[in-house]
Amino acid sequence: MTRVLNDPTTFARDHLRGFAHLHADLLTAVPGGVVRADAPPAATVAVVTGGGSGHYPAFCGWVGPGLADGAVVGDVFASPSAEQVVRVARAADTGGGVLLVYGNYAGDVLNFTEALDRLAAEGVAVRQLAVTDDVTSAGPDERERRRGTAGDLVVLKVAGAAAAAGHDLDRVTALAERANARTASFGIAFSGCTLPGADAPLFDLPDGLMGVGMGVHGEPGIAEQPVARAADLARLLVDRLLAERPADASDRVAVLLNGLGATKYEELFLLWGEVAALLEAAGLTLVAPEVGELITSLDMAGLSLTVCWLDAELEELWRAPATSPAFRRGAVHAGPARRTAAATPAPVAETAPVTPRAPEVVAVSRLVAGAAGDVRDALAAAEQHLGDLDAVAGDGDHGRGMSRGASAAHEAAARAAALGAGPATVLQEAGAAWADRSGGTSGALWGAALRAAAGALPDDAVPDASAVVAAVTAARDALVRTGGAAVGDKTMLDAIEPFVTVLAEGVADGAPVREAWTRAAREAQTAAEATAQLTPLRGRARPLAARSLGHPDPGAVSAALVLTTLGGAGTGGGPA
Amino acid sequence: MTRVLNDPTTFARDHLRGFAHLHADLLTAVPGGVVRADAPPAATVAVVTGGGSGHYPAFCGWVGPGLADGAVVGDVFASPSAEQVVRVARAADTGGGVLLVYGNYAGDVLNFTEALDRLAAEGVAVRQLAVTDDVTSAGPDERERRRGTAGDLVVLKVAGAAAAAGHDLDRVTALAERANARTASFGIAFSGCTLPGADAPLFDLPDGLMGVGMGVHGEPGIAEQPVARAADLARLLVDRLLAERPADASDRVAVLLNGLGATKYEELFLLWGEVAALLEAAGLTLVAPEVGELITSLDMAGLSLTVCWLDAELEELWRAPATSPAFRRGAVHAGPARRTAAATPAPVAETAPVTPRAPEVVAVSRLVAGAAGDVRDALAAAEQHLGDLDAVAGDGDHGRGMSRGASAAHEAAARAAALGAGPATVLQEAGAAWADRSGGTSGALWGAALRAAAGALPDDAVPDASAVVAAVTAARDALVRTGGAAVGDKTMLDAIEPFVTVLAEGVADGAPVREAWTRAAREAQTAAEATAQLTPLRGRARPLAARSLGHPDPGAVSAALVLTTLGGAGTGGGPA
Repeated sequence: MTRVLNDPTTFARDHLRGFAHLHADLLTAVPGGVVRADAPPAATVAVVTGGGSGHYPAFCGWVGPGLADGAVVGDVFASPSAEQVVRVARAADTGGGVLLVYGNYAGDVLNFTEALDRLAAEGVAVRQLAVTDDVTSAGPDERERRRGTAGDLVVLKVAGAAAAAGHDLDRVTALAERANARTASFGIAFSGCTLPGADAPLFDLPDGLMGVGMGVHGEPGIAEQPVARAADLARLLVDRLLAERPADASDRVAVLLNGLGATKYEELFLLWGEVAALLEAAGLTLVAPEVGELITSLDMAGLSLTVCWLDAELEELWRAPATSPAFRRGAVHAGPARRTAAATPAPVAETAPVTPRAPEVVAVSRLVAGAAGDVRDALAAAEQHLGDLDAVAGDGDHGRGMSRGASAAHEAAARAAALGAGPATVLQEAGAAWADRSGGTSGALWGAALRAAAGALPDDAVPDASAVVAAVTAARDALVRTGGAAVGDKTMLDAIEPFVTVLAEGVADGAPVREAWTRAAREAQTAAEATAQLTPLRGRARPLAARSLGHPDPGAVSAALVLTTLGGAGTGGGPA
Repeated sequence: MTRVLNDPTTFARDHLRGFAHLHADLLTAVPGGVVRADAPPAATVAVVTGGGSGHYPAFCGWVGPGLADGAVVGDVFASPSAEQVVRVARAADTGGGVLLVYGNYAGDVLNFTEALDRLAAEGVAVRQLAVTDDVTSAGPDERERRRGTAGDLVVLKVAGAAAAAGHDLDRVTALAERANARTASFGIAFSGCTLPGADAPLFDLPDGLMGVGMGVHGEPGIAEQPVARAADLARLLVDRLLAERPADASDRVAVLLNGLGATKYEELFLLWGEVAALLEAAGLTLVAPEVGELITSLDMAGLSLTVCWLDAELEELWRAPATSPAFRRGAVHAGPARRTAAATPAPVAETAPVTPRAPEVVAVSRLVAGAAGDVRDALAAAEQHLGDLDAVAGDGDHGRGMSRGASAAHEAAARAAALGAGPATVLQEAGAAWADRSGGTSGALWGAALRAAAGALPDDAVPDASAVVAAVTAARDALVRTGGAAVGDKTMLDAIEPFVTVLAEGVADGAPVREAWTRAAREAQTAAEATAQLTPLRGRARPLAARSLGHPDPGAVSAALVLTTLGGAGTGGGPA
């Protein structure tokens, strides 16, 4: 249970403040995360990692010479926003280009990819690598679908050492990819963790049972079985990973035994005795193994074993010196203090100055801002429910992320409208704020949708019916493009698609926009309710249900419910 | 909850095996614990620490250059035995003498003090320091009664750095004492931990309450109060420690913020932000602060803050380089590999060869060994009950320690009897085995009592009635001498005293030993039952009850019950 906090909504920001204060010798806070305090030689590749908070030492504990140059710090269990990634990468870049290394989760992929596009558009040489070491999240034939867990550290260590050795961006990327391809992890959960501000854990396991293959946020595993003796547990973990041995592997391996938070050191050491004996009995040499808390999930009880099949080059990089708050090896000499962009961070709002519009246009902007306020209120009221839905197959952060994003969107929209901006600017601002402040998958999706809608609206005139249809269609297209879902995938698209269709048909038939919108919202509501027959499940039933439902995205399901709220708000406050 | 284990009774030994395998570059397992793998220059003071397991990184995580030269590893939450301390100290000694540094708990004091006496008798220059940093366990006027918690690390760091700087034993001891005198800690508990093999935590706190001032095993604190916001919690901790500021203190302090196991990194960093701000607002400069898991209690939720008021010399030692599995600072060069005594450990049994005795004498030895078997069985059956009693005011390890000690005592007694040893040798062997294998307070007390009894018995004749009385009296006297209790202190002496009196009176009145023994046992049983009106209390009532009872030693109380068992066994199998 998370007990030390002031306000659940500022937990991530507050912990980062204390962390940066503590480790001021090694790193510097910048908007979005932290970067190394010392400057590597000019034109060294910058390795930037990141992800949600709650996993310390992942990810900010790994910033320092020989490891990561920067870490992007999202909210608890939520991807950081693309905006955060861009800011940290900019601060870390010394002209040698940037490699983004992060765990393979939908929200992280969306946000890091968007950041990559934006950095590339700015002229930064940039590559990315989503770590895929968790063997239970997909089979060997679908390696690219596997989640990233403790293998993050191996890949990051190799990338950081390769960058420190002076390799160029392509070479650093290739080495990190090789490390990722040769790294496999297998995890066990004994109990769930509790998010800051929550009363109950994300999931429960009955006493005496363990979840086999569970992810670092309690994502569904492959089985539940009685808690095993340490010797049997070691056998289970080792056998599964030995099966992943590449055909060309030598007998030298890097090994990590990771505790998730409440499974403590003595237990890990005890298990290590069993694991090491089995690996050595299999003829393997254990190179610089690490046993401890490497990637946690708040106070979750559980553990994971990671093996990386080394070759000579990977071994040299794995053994190379590194210094960071949480991982040290050998002796590293830090560079001179960084003349950091971080010292003069870019302003948070980078919007071009607002162009004031005619009063009748600004009246529409005010309607849009008012609708954004209704959405914010509805999402605040639904926060718990959305979190519960998300806990069925995800990490339970969806309610908070949506609420935070909608609140930021409303603030931005209201501010722009008050400055006399047109409706396109208002929606653009709302979308940027949502994406930046929400983070996660939903932040990326809603940011993309709102900004796409803005692009289809006039900013200097009252939008006519066809412009409203074009905006809604553009939002839908952006969601499909960004999220990759199709109708029938049980995502929010299942509600949005009929909304767009019915609105477009109504307008084509000559109905006033308000009337067509009402009809479309009713249709979307019906579709959302059908999709939402996925009732929230907690506890034991959860992994099973999630499996049998084919891993639906409950974030998306609940977002569908939100759209009907947006539709409802639009009915009252939308353009006539 | 402790879930990763094979057998609760071998948990400590098993975890140490994996730990030593993992860190073979830094340390070497020896009987009783671990020592540095590298050799410091000859005649460097050896700093040896130790205590129960379950507190990692305390104590074995702190072995390495610049920190401890050796760590003695007891069972979970139980003091190591004097025998273990002696062995580790011998292995660590390079001729410069030994400083023993450990937390101030009754069992540790007994065993380290006995080890000190034995080492001194062997000609080793040896000093000891019991760390007393926990401000809530006694007032400033009784500093010597305070418990040792995370302050162990500060004192050990100062001692290790002073030894590495080449100071002699007196100087190293004086510097460590100065660090101890200037170090204060204050802790908070949110929930209890569960011992390996146990189903329930040692104590519970209701949701929403925190125990203020609780010790690292859940020893009673000073209050329960609602869980505070982080800002208020920081204020509570800081204000209490600022009140301990010595009159001559400068404005420079070493600071530790320690998590007990399930209170995780992000929470600690968040709290650190608040704590650091308050300390800085008080005009203090924070020197090389440490935030993380420094001394844990298995998976207990809670934390503690430690402040050491530095002077120039202490600051230099606190900042000096050190390398160990769990604590590193700067870069340290290890010495050459140790030609370690550890490589050829002394045999576990160091007894002189047994002298076979006449058959009628060996028959008495067999009776004694048989009684030891009855004691073992009775204690095995009572293990849970004794643990529950101990959990009222202690750390819940008493049942396991007694059972383990009695089992070892029986084995040793039976082996000696089978070899034809006399009764004095049998009791001597039983006492040595009990002390060595049980550890903790009870191991030291029972070891001393049995060995004292042995010293009063003939080894080459059937003991007569006066010898039996003399043996029991000697055992009682050894208990008083070793444990320091008086009749009425609610310790086992309250039952032993009437036993000895009634036995002596009966024998003086001419009764046969068996009859006098039966009467004495009945008297002891009555007295024990009166003392044992302390019924086991768990959960909320526990700290309050322990306080209102004036911190009795429930280990001793339950040992009184054991003596009546021993008496009962003696009735059946004792000397006629």
